[in-house]
This record gives sequence, structure tokens and C-alpha cells, in this order.
Amino acid sequence: MGRNMSYEKFIDEVKTYSRIQAIQGQLSWDQQVMMPPNGANARADTLAWLSGRAHETITSKKMGELISDLEKNLSDLDDDQKTNVLEIRRTFDKSTKLPAEFIERFTKTQSKGMGVWAKARKNDDFNMFAPILTELVELAREKITYLENGNTPYDTLLDDYEVGLTVDYLEPLFAELKTGLIEILNKIMKTKKHQLAKLDMTFPVSNQEAFCLKISEQMGFDFNSGRMDTSSHPFSISIAAGDTRITTRYDENEPFSCLYAVMHETGHGLYEQGLPDEFALTPRGTAISLGVHESQSRLWENQIGRTEEFWKYCLPLFQKEFPEFPKSIDPAQMNLIANQVEPSFIRVEADEVTYNLHIILRYEIEKKLFNGELDVNDLPKVWNEMFKEWFGLDVKDDSTGVLQDIHWSMGAFGYFPTYTLGNLYAAQLFETMKEELDDVNNMIEEGNWNPLLDWLRKNIHEKGRLYNPSDLIKKATGKIPSSGPFLKYLNEKYSKIYGF
Amino acid sequence: MGRNMSYEKFIDEVKTYSRIQAIQGQLSWDQQVMMPPNGANARADTLAWLSGRAHETITSKKMGELISDLEKNLSDLDDDQKTNVLEIRRTFDKSTKLPAEFIERFTKTQSKGMGVWAKARKNDDFNMFAPILTELVELAREKITYLENGNTPYDTLLDDYEVGLTVDYLEPLFAELKTGLIEILNKIMKTKKHQLAKLDMTFPVSNQEAFCLKISEQMGFDFNSGRMDTSSHPFSISIAAGDTRITTRYDENEPFSCLYAVMHETGHGLYEQGLPDEFALTPRGTAISLGVHESQSRLWENQIGRTEEFWKYCLPLFQKEFPEFPKSIDPAQMNLIANQVEPSFIRVEADEVTYNLHIILRYEIEKKLFNGELDVNDLPKVWNEMFKEWFGLDVKDDSTGVLQDIHWSMGAFGYFPTYTLGNLYAAQLFETMKEELDDVNNMIEEGNWNPLLDWLRKNIHEKGRLYNPSDLIKKATGKIPSSGPFLKYLNEKYSKIYGF
Repeated sequence: MGRNMSYEKFIDEVKTYSRIQAIQGQLSWDQQVMMPPNGANARADTLAWLSGRAHETITSKKMGELISDLEKNLSDLDDDQKTNVLEIRRTFDKSTKLPAEFIERFTKTQSKGMGVWAKARKNDDFNMFAPILTELVELAREKITYLENGNTPYDTLLDDYEVGLTVDYLEPLFAELKTGLIEILNKIMKTKKHQLAKLDMTFPVSNQEAFCLKISEQMGFDFNSGRMDTSSHPFSISIAAGDTRITTRYDENEPFSCLYAVMHETGHGLYEQGLPDEFALTPRGTAISLGVHESQSRLWENQIGRTEEFWKYCLPLFQKEFPEFPKSIDPAQMNLIANQVEPSFIRVEADEVTYNLHIILRYEIEKKLFNGELDVNDLPKVWNEMFKEWFGLDVKDDSTGVLQDIHWSMGAFGYFPTYTLGNLYAAQLFETMKEELDDVNNMIEEGNWNPLLDWLRKNIHEKGRLYNPSDLIKKATGKIPSSGPFLKYLNEKYSKIYGF
Repeated sequence: MGRNMSYEKFIDEVKTYSRIQAIQGQLSWDQQVMMPPNGANARADTLAWLSGRAHETITSKKMGELISDLEKNLSDLDDDQKTNVLEIRRTFDKSTKLPAEFIERFTKTQSKGMGVWAKARKNDDFNMFAPILTELVELAREKITYLENGNTPYDTLLDDYEVGLTVDYLEPLFAELKTGLIEILNKIMKTKKHQLAKLDMTFPVSNQEAFCLKISEQMGFDFNSGRMDTSSHPFSISIAAGDTRITTRYDENEPFSCLYAVMHETGHGLYEQGLPDEFALTPRGTAISLGVHESQSRLWENQIGRTEEFWKYCLPLFQKEFPEFPKSIDPAQMNLIANQVEPSFIRVEADEVTYNLHIILRYEIEKKLFNGELDVNDLPKVWNEMFKEWFGLDVKDDSTGVLQDIHWSMGAFGYFPTYTLGNLYAAQLFETMKEELDDVNNMIEEGNWNPLLDWLRKNIHEKGRLYNPSDLIKKATGKIPSSGPFLKYLNEKYSKIYGF
């Protein structure tokens, strides 16, 4: 069989695999946004069935042969084709290493785990969660034995969520970051400026929606190729080339969490809309990693959205939607509202400074758990001790402590660090963007955001999976990923806002 | 292999087939209700791919062997199981008879046909449509040679949409119907009462939606197992057990077309929600035919919804949503508004009397086309002549004449008669319901609609595909289907409204 013909055959199989995943995506979007409650059981069955078909397709003998055949003469392929072969090889290996029987057991325990976790959190009872969590940790350990990929067991988990991620890579990043964050936090906490009065008015959902749609469009989100809906947890999903969807939620008492959720999800959505359509349904046309994805959402949400320049442009639009909003509040004050820093219990509600302390805490705990230095039953004790030491806060109940996140109940150990990677990458990318573009602050202030998006398109979106995450960041910024740019950004930003 | 085990294996395969179709249904709902425009190409590809998988599954060697194996000892199976084997045998035979190559050719010509038709209708140019229509007729003729099932070529097409339907079955029904309809129409047209002043107010979409949701709920539609949305053409679809969706559209100038669309689609939806969940994803738990489905929608829309009793109950709810609506209009007048009869050009806008004349006209034309008595190019001439003779109207342009319906552009010849069957079945069912329940008129007037739904559940919905359409109607009503009950219903209704 000629080279081109085997590549075509390979791509056909890859597209079948991706198509099944795209259908899963569409059904999952519908499940979270549209589906009536009584459709849940049938939908779960259908999604499980599709998972089976996807696994069947990626692990088939045919797929294995097609990959091996192409690998024999990799040099005949161009870079795009090579990316597809190597990425599918990686997925194929990972998928074939996991026995179908294990996946089934894991999936079932996940479902059970999420159910038990929800109850345990509601009842504020870690002991209720401990047995299934122990099972999930055991299953993750079993997964490690199948995938084995890295120096330590925890490395294998990290790599599963972010290709190439290791403890060795994270340690220096996180060490520098932790020290820097605590310094900044201490400086901020010494000022009094972080206490702001509550706004005493309501922000109708329809006006919030109109305002957020405007901002999302201004960012460059193409609503002919996407839509925005409501769900209990904001998320974004790409269903197909030309069909990327984001969601948000509304709180009539304050408009900021919705706005920044929309900017965050639009950032994700812009990445998806910027992937090259010509490579749709293949790795070359797919986002490279969770960490890089998070960099796109965070850059728009924080580096662009939580600035005085942003509010100089957007405050008039905001006032138009909310005519009762006090006219005395100026862009600097809006920016202060959007950047209130304070140690708090809940990760998803945390500010830019403390957020990453939440993540590093989870990272340290997970590392100990999988490298054999910590037992599941000791989790609440260790959590609370670390929290007291790092945040100066006494955790009063497990539901706002060790039980707050869903991730472990799904057996997703090693996922959290990708959030912080996203924050670091965002700051590093933004720093380079500022060097390469003329006056970014001025562009933000004038609503001239297209050049910012173009820069991201060229340096990140269009690359798909051509490079692994750290190489991609290095190519875009000229430097290996580090915590430096993020800490510099936080220092400059907060010293200005809080005057230290 | 034991009987039970082979039946289980068979059902597994059947469920896979149904599951793929259910996924197609979900994607198709999304396509019509949610999908952003630029998602269209990818969605079409995915739907075509799923069609291929469904065809593969139903025509597989495995499926054929499982069916044959069970057929050897049919008497070992209970009625539900027999229904599943026989119905899947029918689908298997039909699907295997059609070559994959033919299906592909047909599907492509359909897509092209719909595109050309839309343009031709817009440009009011039958000649633009004639070549592709000729192709579609040829393809339908080719389909007839594969399926061959019935005395005449047209019989094969009829049976494709309504199992067991033949020209011999329709001829006496339609002959009696046509004569009766023309008589009633003449009587109505002699009165002056059918001319009503236009309402000079607007009906906001949100109030129409609230009113229609109330009516749909009152009919018994379970919104925990369904939802209502907006689309350019109202439709209903069952996505899974516990997930049935209906759509409507809004016209701010008049609320009636939306209301009756919702009642119509709710009628379809109630049939789907009433199918036995225990037989989900198998023929036993599936609606039997288009004609029976239409009987459910029409019964709620017309026999129940277009009555004075209905308005006695609903007018206060209506007035609550539309406080500006003239208080002087009473239920009898509302009913007159809802029952205006007049010959007109467009089928989908036609009243209960003239609607079926539109259908019989199409039936006569299709019959001639496929039994070799009419050429595609003569269609406009024949259409206009018949229209003048039957409706007394001069067709001014093909877009309101022979080009008005989408069906032929999709190669759907033999589909139209199922609409009229639905109307006849609805009247026959309602007649029996009135005999068997105490005072149906009073129930309607008091909003006590549960017993009506229960009767339909018991006599139609729960039966799934246990009986073929005409047997099902006979079992429910004690009589073979005829035009009598429908004509009687029209005569009684319109003589009262129009006083003849």
C-alpha cells in the first residue's frame, strides 16, 4: 500500500474515533444544558455505550497496524501528519494498556464516588466518603501500574492529564510560586483597601446576559459558530468545526462572577474556534492540553478582564445595561471590585493570588498520597493543618475543606496542577504579547482586542498539537515556562491597586 | 443456544440499532433547535455517518442469523417478543433489499433536491425543479423495484410509510371522504359567518409561551420527561425514554397558530411518553405508524382543541395572559375563530375541511405519476386544473401551487396520505371514546382531561407495535377504519358553528 493511501486509511479511522467523541460531547452538552431530568438514565447508558465504541475504535487491531505501518517511514510524512501519527500512537498505547475490564470497574466506581461525595459533602461527613475514596485511590494506583510512565507513581498521573508533566518539572515552578504568592498576599493584607461595601441593588439576568454577550463578541467569539447558554457550572465545549458552545450562570445579586465566567469560557471557546478546521477530527486540529487551554481562559479573564483598562472601555456598556448602578464608581473602583484579595476556604471562589495556593496545597497532598506518605483517613487532619499554616484560617467543616472539590470523587488525581500551569502560562504569554504588540494596555482600553486574539491565534491556537505544552510556550515566548512572569504580573498589578 | 439466550442476544443487537437512531434523533433535534449555522456541514457528515452505522447494524449477517434462528420457533415467544422479531424482520428485509450504493445515491439526490426546491420555490420556477424531480421520481421507481410489495408500484411506496397501506385500502376511504368534504364545504361557503374581523393587537411571545405551556401540561405532557422549544417548523421527537421534545413557533400578530401547533405536537409527544418504557429501544415500545401518530396529534388539536367546550375552560386562562384581548369575545366566538373554513392555496394553513382535499389531490397525482399516467413536466398543468376544479381557485404561481411542499424534493412519494389517515383515525377514536367515557364534552369543559389521555394510553399508546395500524384502530373502536366518523364529526361540528 502506498504511503499516502495508508495515511488516508489511518486518518479515516482517526476521524471515526474523533467523531464518536464529538457525539459524546454533543450529548454531554445537552445533558448539562437541555435534557429533562427523566432522560438521565437513558443518557448515561448512551454515553457509556459511546465510550465503549470509542475505546473499541482507538484500540482496534486495524488502528494498531495502521500506526505501525506509518511509523516505519515517519520521515516520509510532513510535520502535520507526523503529529497525527505520534499523538494517536500515544492515545492508542494508553488505551490499550488499560484493560477494558479495568475501565468498566473504574467508570462504575467513579459514578458511585460522585454520588457518595455529593452526600458526604452535604452531610459534612468525610468518614462517609473515606471508603470509596480509598477504592478510588487504589484504582488510580492500579492505573499507574498499567500506564507506568515517569519516575514516581504521581508522575504517571500528572502525565495522564498534561502530556509530559512531571514532579521534577513542577517542583521548582511551585516552590518559587508559593514563596512569591505568600509575600504578595502578606503585603495586600496589610492594606485596608480590600474591604469594599456590598452593592445594594439587583442585576437582572437578561441585562447580565446582554452585557456578557457583548463582551464575548468583542473578544472575538463567533456566534455563527457557537452559542451561549446557562448551566449549573459554567463550561465550554467544542462540538465540531463551526460549533463551539459556552455556558455561564447568573446571580442577580452581583454581575461579576457571571461576567468573568463568560470571559473565562470565551477564552476557552476562542482557542477551540481558532484551531485549524482543515485538521478537524484529528490531533493536529485539537487543543494540546488542559494547562494550555486554561492559559487561554485565564489570559482573557484576568490579564485582560481584571484591569482598569478593561473597565475604562466596558464601564459605559455596563452602565447602559444597569442604569441604577452608582455613577460615582469609576474604572479604578470597578477594577478594585474585580480584584479583591483575601484568604478564603473555597478554591473556585478564590482570587488570583490565593487561588494557586489552593492548587499547590492539593498538589502536595496528592503527591504524598501516591508516593506512599499519606493515608486517606488522615486527609482531613493534614488538610486542616496545612490550611491553617498556609492561609491562617481554621477549617470548620470538611465540606468547606477537604470535601469541597469533585475531582477526587471522580478518581481525577493529578488534574489540579493544570489549573496553575494555566495561570503561569497565561502570564508568560501575556508578557511576550505586550513586548511584541505595540501598546496592549491602550488596545484594551480602546476595545481594540482583535490584535490580542490574532497573537494568540498565531502563537497558540493554530498550532493544535504540533508541539508539547512546554515547547509550545517556549516557542511562543522564547523562554521555558516559569513562575517569574506570573509573580511579576501579580506584584505590578496589586501594588498598583492596593498601593504597596 | 437456548431460546432465551438467543432472544437476549437479538434484543442487544436491536437496542444497538435503536440507540444509533436515538442519537441521530438527538443530533437532528439539536440541528433544528440549537445548532449555530456554521455547524451545519459537520453535523450533516455526522448524521450521514450515523445512518451508515445504523444500516450496517440492521443489515448485519449477525442480525439476519439472530432473526432466522428465532423465527424457527416463533411459538416459543410471547406476543411482545413476537412483535419485536416480526417488526425487525420487516426492517431487516427492507434495509437489506436496498443496496448501500442506492441509499447513498438517494441520500445525495435528496440533499440536492431540497436545495434546488428551496430555490425554485423562491423563484417561483417549476422548470428549475423539474430535472431533479425527474431524478427523484426515477430513484423512487428504482426503490420500488427493490422493495416490490403490493399490486401497483404506488402501493410499494405507500407501504414504505404506513405498513400495510394500499391503494385498494385508500380508494373507498378517499372517495367517500372527497364527496363528503365537498358537500360540507359548499354548505359552509353559503353562510356569511366565516368572515371575521382581524384582531388589532399584539400577543407577546412570552405570554403565548406561558399559555401554551399551561395547555400542554393540562393535556398531560410531563415536562420532567420533556421540553418545549422554538424552531422554524414545529415538530416533536422522542429522544429516549424520559426525554420527548416538542417545538413550536410564534407569531406576535395572532396566538392561534402557535396554540394549535403546541396542542398538535403535544398530542404526538403524549403518544411517545405513553409508550411502554420497559420495551424502550425495541419495536414493541415504538409508535406503530405515521398515520396513527397523526391521529394522536389531530385528536388533541381538533376534536378537543377546536371546540366551544375547550374555550369555555381555556378562555379565562387566555384572558389572563392577554388582558387587552376584548372581553366581549365569548367561547363560541373563540371557537369560530379557531374554525374558519375557506378554500385556500396552502395545505399547512388549511382548515379541517379543506385540508384533506389538499391531501387527496396529492394522492391522485402521485398515483398517476407512479402508475405511469403522468409525466413530471405536466405536473403544474395538472395541479392547476385539479385545483381549479376542486377548490374553485386559480393557482397564480407554482410556489403556492405544485412547489409548496418539501416532501417530493426529498423523494418522499406516498407520504401525504398518512396525514389524512391520521384525521380519519382521530375522529373514529374520538367517537368511541365518547361512547365509552361518560360525558366527554363536560370533561373538556371542566379541564378534566386525564380520562381522555388514559383512554388513549390504554387503547393506543401502550400497544406500541403489537398490531398493525388498521387492526389497532379496529381493536380500539370495534370497526374497520372508515371515513364515516370523520364526516359525521365535521357535519355536526360545522352545522352547529355555521348554522346550516
